[in-house]
Amino acid sequence: MTNQETNRQWVLANRPDGWPTEADFELKETPVPQPGEGEMLVRILWVSVDPYMRGRMRDVKSYAPPVPLGGVMEAGTVGRVVASNLSRFKEGDIVEGRLGWQDYALSDGKGVRVIDPELAPISTALGVLGMPGMTAYFGFLDICDPKPGETVVVSGAAGAVGSLVGQIARIKGCRAVGIAGGEDKVAWLTSDLGFDAAFNYKTVPNYGAKLAELCPDGIDSYFDNVGGEITDAIFPLLNSHARVSICGQISQYNLEKPELGPRLLWHCIRQQLKIQGFLVFQYADRFKEGLEQMAAWIRDGSLQYRENVVEGLENTPTAFIGMMRGENIGKQVIHVAD
Amino acid sequence: MTNQETNRQWVLANRPDGWPTEADFELKETPVPQPGEGEMLVRILWVSVDPYMRGRMRDVKSYAPPVPLGGVMEAGTVGRVVASNLSRFKEGDIVEGRLGWQDYALSDGKGVRVIDPELAPISTALGVLGMPGMTAYFGFLDICDPKPGETVVVSGAAGAVGSLVGQIARIKGCRAVGIAGGEDKVAWLTSDLGFDAAFNYKTVPNYGAKLAELCPDGIDSYFDNVGGEITDAIFPLLNSHARVSICGQISQYNLEKPELGPRLLWHCIRQQLKIQGFLVFQYADRFKEGLEQMAAWIRDGSLQYRENVVEGLENTPTAFIGMMRGENIGKQVIHVAD
Repeated sequence: MTNQETNRQWVLANRPDGWPTEADFELKETPVPQPGEGEMLVRILWVSVDPYMRGRMRDVKSYAPPVPLGGVMEAGTVGRVVASNLSRFKEGDIVEGRLGWQDYALSDGKGVRVIDPELAPISTALGVLGMPGMTAYFGFLDICDPKPGETVVVSGAAGAVGSLVGQIARIKGCRAVGIAGGEDKVAWLTSDLGFDAAFNYKTVPNYGAKLAELCPDGIDSYFDNVGGEITDAIFPLLNSHARVSICGQISQYNLEKPELGPRLLWHCIRQQLKIQGFLVFQYADRFKEGLEQMAAWIRDGSLQYRENVVEGLENTPTAFIGMMRGENIGKQVIHVAD
Repeated sequence: MTNQETNRQWVLANRPDGWPTEADFELKETPVPQPGEGEMLVRILWVSVDPYMRGRMRDVKSYAPPVPLGGVMEAGTVGRVVASNLSRFKEGDIVEGRLGWQDYALSDGKGVRVIDPELAPISTALGVLGMPGMTAYFGFLDICDPKPGETVVVSGAAGAVGSLVGQIARIKGCRAVGIAGGEDKVAWLTSDLGFDAAFNYKTVPNYGAKLAELCPDGIDSYFDNVGGEITDAIFPLLNSHARVSICGQISQYNLEKPELGPRLLWHCIRQQLKIQGFLVFQYADRFKEGLEQMAAWIRDGSLQYRENVVEGLENTPTAFIGMMRGENIGKQVIHVAD
């Protein structure tokens, strides 16, 4: 049934305190499983690494249960159905689902969708035409409700989600300003993606002064992927009735203990702000609309995406850690097999 | 035209750093002015002191300009028209308007409304049937969108606004939990106003533990008058899709320098929260609806209000400072003349 005798699986070996390291994960080899009644076996071809996974390594109450110690790391994947006892899936189907950092996975089909390899490269089902794309589309449009002429600031702007948010803002007639960590990222945002302005937070000493310079009319909405000091600098510049969409707080995920910051709630009164957090799955019943619109924008050339590809399942933890450090531009994916 | 030859006016003498003191205000005596073309003269009968006035003493960019040094302190007032060159107002009318801490004021009628002394005591135009009442009504109902069976927590619960919010929550079928600074306040909330629970933050060492005890099903919405450590303790207990209405942050207004606090935005993602700040004036076109509903609830006995009356314009700064320290129960007003 397969040429490969074993299934390699990355399991969580330790709950990291602060920054994760490769030693927090262990590569186990197990036999390739056989699908039982109501199951299918999927050969995983692409694996995703995303910031939310850091939360899954922590044994605290959150919106989703943690990965158990010794459990396969949870992740979005794209794979090919090898054998199926499910009517909805047949051998050879290309599917996307949360099947984890491994070569093979059994699935009962729940939360798995068949994707059309003719429409776009299949890895995009983990990016622009997948969870990060829907995160950008709904988390920005639904919460920030952008209007033409408004100024939109995006943090984590060169990442999988942020790079799409800034482009959607531009498509909607807004002035898009990005914050990213690197000159190459800033150049990509402004030269290739059409951001109106961007800056490298690693070399700008005073975020507030830089933002005031790049946003002379203030900030009407802010899409936050990072939190921390960058977000602190945004709040004083928000205009009356500005909207803040809280997507991620990656600057806080690897701290050994929570840091303190300036209190921000006063700004809510001063400028009648709305701050709203979301999880992409709350928009699941509208994904069809989002995927069709994103695909249409790709087709007509108004939306670009970029993938940062690492080869080999064995390099997944390294790719995850690199993504958390901001080493990627665009969506970080791991190519596991053809 | 009047028996009193002079107009006493409380002007801002210094911009306080930290807690205001009586020395920050000066009582000036000036001649009672005469109304010119398009003006009226109002004899002020009741003066209001409210937390927002602390902001007006600060020379920083905010939603409203500061009171200038030497300027009459801005305040809501109720008064009687003494002489009028305006068609909309006639001698003897009882009016409510922002006419300041003084005995007499000239007005061009902008923002001034005639009130009906038959409907309710005229001082309520500064409280339950005025700005604080509208603040409670719209700031709670519009932002928190309460549903029967939900748990609503109110901070500053024994104040002019908070005491109304908890009662509106109860009227809407919610479980109302109040946080206040004093045993007498807690007793009033639970025994007289029908709050389901309340606690005295001055004697409870661990707010989070107390809130968890009083809110066994978590918190569905939070109406915040105070900010600071009380608000910090709320966020971990908020339920999925909880709403937070930011009305005031009184714990922060008299700090000599801003304090740091735990970062709260992560909770927005974890529980898909909405946090929204407001100014009551954004609801001005709906005040009629709000006033009618509040008056109806008072008439049918479902809504109570309480006023804390200080006698004499000369005691206004002391009453203001006392209100900032939480010495009042209910709405703090100053009785200036009959």
